[in-house]
Amino acid sequence: MSIESLHDLFLERLKDIYNAEQQIAKAIPDAIEEATRPELKSALDHHLGQTRMHIERLERIFEALGVAPKGTRCRGMEGILKEASDLFSEEPPEEVLDAAIIECCQHVEHYEIAAYGTLREYARQLDIEEAVRLLDQTLHEESETDKVLTGIAESGVNRAARDISDGETAHQL
Amino acid sequence: MSIESLHDLFLERLKDIYNAEQQIAKAIPDAIEEATRPELKSALDHHLGQTRMHIERLERIFEALGVAPKGTRCRGMEGILKEASDLFSEEPPEEVLDAAIIECCQHVEHYEIAAYGTLREYARQLDIEEAVRLLDQTLHEESETDKVLTGIAESGVNRAARDISDGETAHQL
Repeated sequence: MSIESLHDLFLERLKDIYNAEQQIAKAIPDAIEEATRPELKSALDHHLGQTRMHIERLERIFEALGVAPKGTRCRGMEGILKEASDLFSEEPPEEVLDAAIIECCQHVEHYEIAAYGTLREYARQLDIEEAVRLLDQTLHEESETDKVLTGIAESGVNRAARDISDGETAHQL
Repeated sequence: MSIESLHDLFLERLKDIYNAEQQIAKAIPDAIEEATRPELKSALDHHLGQTRMHIERLERIFEALGVAPKGTRCRGMEGILKEASDLFSEEPPEEVLDAAIIECCQHVEHYEIAAYGTLREYARQLDIEEAVRLLDQTLHEESETDKVLTGIAESGVNRAARDISDGETAHQL
């Protein structure tokens, strides 16, 4: 890469998140498989569909820029997903694993929130209207997913994980 | 690591963010050196002081748990900081570099927001009151830093970076 302008930086970071989204689309099915709570499985499944849509939106932006869609290795997402797979490989009790899955997904979402927030602002400065619109839609969906995951954690997953430590069952509390 | 309970998961993720904060404290001086805008340099310098405080707070939590402070390799932060150093090594024009520094720092902040948000909720479930208080303080500061960085980007850095592309000077717009 050679970065001489904001346009170059925009394109470079677009390639980063394009690769990140592809890594996420590949990782979510494993998380769905590992998850126990139906509402967590369902939220992850919904987000897999959204992720595929986010990839398509990025491809439309590449198209608008007259550039073939191409990712560059996103090391940030690689690291986040490696941490997740290391945690899962410890095979914690299923209640604790659900809590760990939510945390890992929230790291993924926050990486994306930072990325899309910045890209939308770059697109605004560069007056690429279609990109602003598409990036804004995706940013909104990533923020919503983060809130949904927080809701699932607070509605019982973290409590169930704690109860395992106490040797109690969730309904006792 | 062996994760059998929410307490184990809490401790494991505490070690992760402890290592992440140490990586950040090591990386910020380079970002201060690379930055051009005085308000960006100053915000980074302020955050370096906060980061050292966050490390001390984590050490107080380890102490409250009766565990010696110890980090485990945080691959998420490693990846985020590697991306940053790759971008900086491209030596973009200084206005574009300031924009890139802000983006990288916002990835760092969002990693931390996800981590501290989760840790605070785990600490609540585990009734570790001092940890809840300390983690809440840090979470608040990380969120504030993210907003300060957005403010600096929007107050002129991104526009200056765009103007480089147009061969214009910032004051013309």
